[in-house]
Amino acid sequence: AIIVYRLPWTWKCSKLLMKFIHAGLNTIAMILAIVSMVAVFEFHNTKNIPNMYSLHSWIGLTAVIFYSLQLFLGFAVFLLPFAPVHLRAALMPIHVYSGLTIFATVIATALMGITEKLIFALKNPAYSASPPEATLVNCLGLLLVIFGSLILWMASRPHWKRPPAENAKILRPIGATPDGTEVESTLTKHSNTDKSDLRSNTEAARKQNIKFDEAGQRSTM
Amino acid sequence: AIIVYRLPWTWKCSKLLMKFIHAGLNTIAMILAIVSMVAVFEFHNTKNIPNMYSLHSWIGLTAVIFYSLQLFLGFAVFLLPFAPVHLRAALMPIHVYSGLTIFATVIATALMGITEKLIFALKNPAYSASPPEATLVNCLGLLLVIFGSLILWMASRPHWKRPPAENAKILRPIGATPDGTEVESTLTKHSNTDKSDLRSNTEAARKQNIKFDEAGQRSTM
Repeated sequence: AIIVYRLPWTWKCSKLLMKFIHAGLNTIAMILAIVSMVAVFEFHNTKNIPNMYSLHSWIGLTAVIFYSLQLFLGFAVFLLPFAPVHLRAALMPIHVYSGLTIFATVIATALMGITEKLIFALKNPAYSASPPEATLVNCLGLLLVIFGSLILWMASRPHWKRPPAENAKILRPIGATPDGTEVESTLTKHSNTDKSDLRSNTEAARKQNIKFDEAGQRSTM
Repeated sequence: AIIVYRLPWTWKCSKLLMKFIHAGLNTIAMILAIVSMVAVFEFHNTKNIPNMYSLHSWIGLTAVIFYSLQLFLGFAVFLLPFAPVHLRAALMPIHVYSGLTIFATVIATALMGITEKLIFALKNPAYSASPPEATLVNCLGLLLVIFGSLILWMASRPHWKRPPAENAKILRPIGATPDGTEVESTLTKHSNTDKSDLRSNTEAARKQNIKFDEAGQRSTM
């Protein structure tokens, strides 16, 4: 869901479609998170294991709470057509930051969970004797870190951002305009198909552009 | 060390001084990391605990290796006066990304270490019985996550970046130039005191500026 806006082939889709994919994938992830939380509590209750005692559970629950808040606010501000452009512009950097921070926190929580599980589950031979299971799961943990690093790399590259919308070109300096006619036509099509963001007049759009550019957040508003 | 360039009062210092502070703090952190790694291995050997079996140790060692690489490359490219400007410009986004990723990974490693230690050290009452020590250390773990989030927030805010260097102003659009004469004079002083980065001619600097601006990396080259 994070890198939906960073895949060059998606730059041809309408912004609204992109938003639906982004919101849809995150909703599926949220449902899966709730299902797995219920499963954990049921498992603990069945096995008479106390709930919510570990750091893993504390940070995990915090992450899920912030994730649901992020989902709700994202839906209310960026998907529903009621929020004004200046509110979207003000909240977008926060939305991006909290999305990435929640993502990193979830990976840290998973790593803590893996550590706990390996210690509790491996008894004979113990985790410290490095049985094949331990090595396998350690490798999975390392892959999780590599996965997280790659996603953060893709999400933070400025040239992997969607090209700026048509009105964003007004104040771009010479030499920094997107070249190639295909991009131009995509932008035109894109601003035609996505009328909801074009309610502001030109002057407001100019001012907004400065702000978007300053915040490094263009066209995914 | 990460936020040295993000503190407004440091924008008045010369860039070279900032680099020395950044490199110095990171060198101290590296020395402390090596000291603590030696301590861990000595502790394990004395207590007959196997080394390097846990996911915590795998990810921790990977992070330390990447950190030493980061420190060495940063020193060679950004501190020593031999690297050409285009190499610095190309490596700066990678340097920033890997610095932040290593930082996040180190926090995840610390959280895994805390989890391990709580499970191994608390036996009577056990970690799962939530004794006061467990609650205290869980709170410390949560504080570590909050600390990491704040640092990432500070490091990723564009308006907390150092103001652009004097030659970077050539192509800035109207309305986005830094206002206030104090900044102007700081910039002038700053470009006087840091001659090592002004070897390129104006045209090259202009081209470079576009690249710096695109990469969102200005004046900390």
